[in-house]
Amino acid sequence: RSKIQIFQYTSLKWCLCFLVGAAVGLIGFFNNLAIENIAGIKFVITSNKMLANKYMEAFLIFTAANLGLTLFAVVITTFIAPETAGSGIPEVKAYLNGVDAPVIFSFRTLLVKIVGSIAAVSSSLNVGKAGPMVHTGAIIAALTCQGGSKKYWLTWRWFRFFNNDRDRRDLVTCGSAAGIAAAFRAPVGGVLFALEEMASWWRSALLWRAFFSTAIVAILLRGLTDLCLSGKCGLFGTGGLIIYDVTSINISYHLRDVPPVLLLGVLGGIAGSLYNCLLGKVLQLYNIINEKGTAYKILLACTVSIVTSCLLFGLPWFAPCHACPPGASEPCPTIGRSGNFKKFQCPPGHYNELASLFFNTNDDAIKNLFSKDTDTEFHPLSVLIFFITCFFLSIFSYGIVAPVGLFIPVIVTGASYGRLVGLLIGSTSNLNHGLFAVLGAASLLGGSMRMTVSLCVILLELTNNLLLLPLIMLVLLVSKTVADAFNGNIYDQIMSFKGFPYLETHAEPYMRQLTVSDVVAGPLRVFSGIELVGNIVHVLRTTGHNGFPVVDEPPYSDAPVLYGLILRSHVITLLKKKSFLESPRLDVDAVERFTASDFAKQGLGNQVRIEDIALSEEEMEMYIDLHPFTNSSPYTVVETMSLAKALTLFRGVGLRHLLVVPKTSERLPVVGILTRHDFMPEHILGLHPTLERSKWKRLRFKFPLWNKIF
Amino acid sequence: RSKIQIFQYTSLKWCLCFLVGAAVGLIGFFNNLAIENIAGIKFVITSNKMLANKYMEAFLIFTAANLGLTLFAVVITTFIAPETAGSGIPEVKAYLNGVDAPVIFSFRTLLVKIVGSIAAVSSSLNVGKAGPMVHTGAIIAALTCQGGSKKYWLTWRWFRFFNNDRDRRDLVTCGSAAGIAAAFRAPVGGVLFALEEMASWWRSALLWRAFFSTAIVAILLRGLTDLCLSGKCGLFGTGGLIIYDVTSINISYHLRDVPPVLLLGVLGGIAGSLYNCLLGKVLQLYNIINEKGTAYKILLACTVSIVTSCLLFGLPWFAPCHACPPGASEPCPTIGRSGNFKKFQCPPGHYNELASLFFNTNDDAIKNLFSKDTDTEFHPLSVLIFFITCFFLSIFSYGIVAPVGLFIPVIVTGASYGRLVGLLIGSTSNLNHGLFAVLGAASLLGGSMRMTVSLCVILLELTNNLLLLPLIMLVLLVSKTVADAFNGNIYDQIMSFKGFPYLETHAEPYMRQLTVSDVVAGPLRVFSGIELVGNIVHVLRTTGHNGFPVVDEPPYSDAPVLYGLILRSHVITLLKKKSFLESPRLDVDAVERFTASDFAKQGLGNQVRIEDIALSEEEMEMYIDLHPFTNSSPYTVVETMSLAKALTLFRGVGLRHLLVVPKTSERLPVVGILTRHDFMPEHILGLHPTLERSKWKRLRFKFPLWNKIF
Repeated sequence: RSKIQIFQYTSLKWCLCFLVGAAVGLIGFFNNLAIENIAGIKFVITSNKMLANKYMEAFLIFTAANLGLTLFAVVITTFIAPETAGSGIPEVKAYLNGVDAPVIFSFRTLLVKIVGSIAAVSSSLNVGKAGPMVHTGAIIAALTCQGGSKKYWLTWRWFRFFNNDRDRRDLVTCGSAAGIAAAFRAPVGGVLFALEEMASWWRSALLWRAFFSTAIVAILLRGLTDLCLSGKCGLFGTGGLIIYDVTSINISYHLRDVPPVLLLGVLGGIAGSLYNCLLGKVLQLYNIINEKGTAYKILLACTVSIVTSCLLFGLPWFAPCHACPPGASEPCPTIGRSGNFKKFQCPPGHYNELASLFFNTNDDAIKNLFSKDTDTEFHPLSVLIFFITCFFLSIFSYGIVAPVGLFIPVIVTGASYGRLVGLLIGSTSNLNHGLFAVLGAASLLGGSMRMTVSLCVILLELTNNLLLLPLIMLVLLVSKTVADAFNGNIYDQIMSFKGFPYLETHAEPYMRQLTVSDVVAGPLRVFSGIELVGNIVHVLRTTGHNGFPVVDEPPYSDAPVLYGLILRSHVITLLKKKSFLESPRLDVDAVERFTASDFAKQGLGNQVRIEDIALSEEEMEMYIDLHPFTNSSPYTVVETMSLAKALTLFRGVGLRHLLVVPKTSERLPVVGILTRHDFMPEHILGLHPTLERSKWKRLRFKFPLWNKIF
Repeated sequence: RSKIQIFQYTSLKWCLCFLVGAAVGLIGFFNNLAIENIAGIKFVITSNKMLANKYMEAFLIFTAANLGLTLFAVVITTFIAPETAGSGIPEVKAYLNGVDAPVIFSFRTLLVKIVGSIAAVSSSLNVGKAGPMVHTGAIIAALTCQGGSKKYWLTWRWFRFFNNDRDRRDLVTCGSAAGIAAAFRAPVGGVLFALEEMASWWRSALLWRAFFSTAIVAILLRGLTDLCLSGKCGLFGTGGLIIYDVTSINISYHLRDVPPVLLLGVLGGIAGSLYNCLLGKVLQLYNIINEKGTAYKILLACTVSIVTSCLLFGLPWFAPCHACPPGASEPCPTIGRSGNFKKFQCPPGHYNELASLFFNTNDDAIKNLFSKDTDTEFHPLSVLIFFITCFFLSIFSYGIVAPVGLFIPVIVTGASYGRLVGLLIGSTSNLNHGLFAVLGAASLLGGSMRMTVSLCVILLELTNNLLLLPLIMLVLLVSKTVADAFNGNIYDQIMSFKGFPYLETHAEPYMRQLTVSDVVAGPLRVFSGIELVGNIVHVLRTTGHNGFPVVDEPPYSDAPVLYGLILRSHVITLLKKKSFLESPRLDVDAVERFTASDFAKQGLGNQVRIEDIALSEEEMEMYIDLHPFTNSSPYTVVETMSLAKALTLFRGVGLRHLLVVPKTSERLPVVGILTRHDFMPEHILGLHPTLERSKWKRLRFKFPLWNKIF
């Protein structure tokens, strides 16, 4: 390629990053605006009814609005794009690991994800918008990469350059970083999240480009929020959802504050692993229900919505009313808008402390819990009720078939847990309770998501206070360590539950005892360098393999020699073009009849299947010279190579196919092909059941009782 | 290995991280304490002389003290550990890339690095302490890993577990992260620095452990600084060097502030690349001088020190005196301690603005430049003088043979540049000049170090204000982009100047045109599976290779078959143990005569060379069965593999030796061994000079004029 083309390519890449950042920033802002307004109007109407003492009417309106929104989200998800259910983070993570699932990156998925997540979050379900935002970012990146969606006639020819796996994966990484940046207004946290949790391969250049995308998001969000300060954004208010500006004054803490913080970390780690465990069980249960049919899916979601509405509306009645604090910065109780001091059933001049947590958006609840100088506002019992309700509601809400995330529910649960610990410890620590809430959120996040640096930075950017850093680090380290002793990361758990063949970096110890020849199996299909069309069609029709070794045989070589590897999609392109040869001969100028775009990766719905190609009997008797289209230097391993080492190569270089060649050259020059599935522990242990016994178990405390109870 | 051993191993690993973090934190604190006190006492004595109007005496004391300290640093570096010269970051980066240089991790190096860097920084040279701190962290990590230093009888047997390349590399990464964390009190920034700039391989688990180390550093530093608040640390003051707490109040900025910030970024990028270019030239020049002998080295350093002293003492005389501001928080002018309002030659109640920059430690100068509400304190001409002086002094100071860093000089130069731009732009922007100084530092750092996320986070942690984030991101992106158009990263430049074979992640385009057989060269030395001792000794004595293929030949196999790869160090261990065989036969229980520690990686000075092993004539006639000690599944590539792909494998998996096997099996079953050096562009272009022409040039604007001027 010439210099100008390279310059074009590089600058287009940056343009793409810019576009992704800008699009994700805009959508993130729009999401927040929509949620804040829809939920706000709902709360305002309900509150007005309650002001008029029409409590029953208020309850019915509240429940109906929630039910309607939930129903809308579930129906569009079920009927239009079932793949958008859940947060989408496990899907994107699996894609970045090399699991190809084109359906998760379609334009339809994007629309349903955005609209569905707005509806689900507005419906007061205890679900988050961060996960769907990450998926949204990833979809936007993937679509931009393939030059728009062909189906909807939104295509840009210029971007077709990037229709290859590597560029696409890079941009999807940037997109998911931008997603977190948009959800939490945390640009550095977004980059670190993409690095720590999402990406399986990482380069320094990618770090830079992801950073650029998130910077665009941050600048855009800041600009748009400034615009909203003038009050043109309805109930969006002064920045609304995306900033929790806890405090910018100095927080002082000393060595004697460390023990309570450690305790918080340990308990948070236990709670986090319990959360993961319970969520897994509930997902299994829900899966059984959801598989029974569409009606069951909708019924399940409706049940969850109604129960949530009842709890949110019902529980605040148990709390006593408090007189408004004299020097509050906003009117108390708040009337006619979605504020913090909810009047609820209280007499004028009083507010209900539980309603300010329950009867609010999750973001406002978090803001209340994080706020400082509010040590006297909450009582332990109220916070305990809120904590338990949140804990279980968030577990039971995630499994419904709608685009819902886990981040915000975990933060709100963790914040209430931290606040509770703060209230119970009371005067023995001079940390304020808002700080305890932040640390509690950190500990529960650390216990269930198991990230470290990225969570730390996200929380710092959320709370806007760098002085918290050492404490947050400490809590995260402790809670992750404790939780890791019990079970794994929640996203990995969901991924293995969904059956994605995720390839870990490290080899399991029993893989060292095996050689690659122990796992390579099945009849191997090989093409000759110059192959009969009929043979090719037969092989393609009878197997689902995506790569085939090409072997040169006599008379074209002295002995059978491995020439290379050809991809199924390339063979199909050759068949589709029908540039066949009458007789078996080398076809050196075949390449000229094709352009690079013929072999470009096709988007969803554009793949040609072998069944779609009609070939006449005559054509079946003709030949193709596969040489020009074969990858002539594929990676190979000798059959005696240890499986662990082969995995290191496969994972380190990022392969889809790894050819296994024989040690001695008596037989066919290729023994088999290793793919991702051959490295899956289930596959290996299926072939060698005796290994199960010697399988190295991770050092975890096993509580057999737990499995019996739940 | 049993469960208990794995548990031991894992917990020991965490212990090591803790130890490294604690040690680096303590040393970092000690460094700062020592520098602040030594430099402080020097400034106090000089100022007192000046108060007594004894200017000449003051100048002589100042110059003599600086010269003495510089001389001390240079002499210990030259005579005890010449490898400590410079920042050490390029060396550690090369080590983490796989370049083995045991000398940089010795106990002697550690001591000289710490003491030398304290002396050099205290001597008012325009040099930094961050680079040496990174190297110190890396040395501590490496020493802990090999269980202390054998030579100095500081050994712990328990830690000998970790005497392998992988664990050591991991811990060195943690150590360098801890180094940055200790230098800037920036724990997250430290982790990101290690990730972005230092590490060549990275795993999620490593992120976590590095984070743990830096958390320990942060907590320790915070505790120790708290202790110093009570005034027991001499002139260390209230936290002293390591925190620049710019401002914690809200900074507001709008869209119209973006153009000046962009301008700052562009100019900073140009200045940064110019800085790199000039530094390269000066290093070449200094190298010529330093190679002439020890006397020249010392003379050069003395010249630099005297010139620096003259400039620092002389230039403030050009500045006018200002009346002390009425509401200053500290006494003005500061007398008897190292403060900001230097009296210098001014009458009582006045201070010299240039002296508060020049006649101060670099850290205090940065603090002054970063401080807010000081827009009227400085005048453009003073700042211009300071900027130019700093720019050239830092370029001319780095090359001296002493442990000196680049970070702080670049920050101070950049801060003065930013302040200057702020002064010149004046009223058209409502950003305060302290903020301009921070952005200027960011732009110059981005222009010379070319990092993004890590610099951004380090600056945020230094200035303790998250609201700066979008602006710092913008400046860094612009300055890096601009500077990348001219030349490369400063550390890469120093590395290639020092001749380290650093392996890049990406393959150069001309490598796609070559196969591995094009670069594999030289007579190949092969061992038989059962080899004569005499042959082995002969091969080891005549070649310097570190790995040898082992081939099974008839009668032990039907045809010559590649058995594996054996390392030179393992062969030497076998020879040392002298467990030879009388006749050529398989020796299956040979392994039992050795323990794992026999083959552990040896520290500096413990390696046995082949010349040290005395063997009798009889022994020379005996045999060794190499099979049990051979790596029987080495990574191999076929000779027709493209060189670019072989590099991807070599770099991706992190190999030292890559065996090349023939395509057809007529000849010997191995063609050659590829090592790191075979992938170096110089080597390849030396073998294939015609490629130079078609070599893909990076898109850079070339200014031939520049090379002529400098």
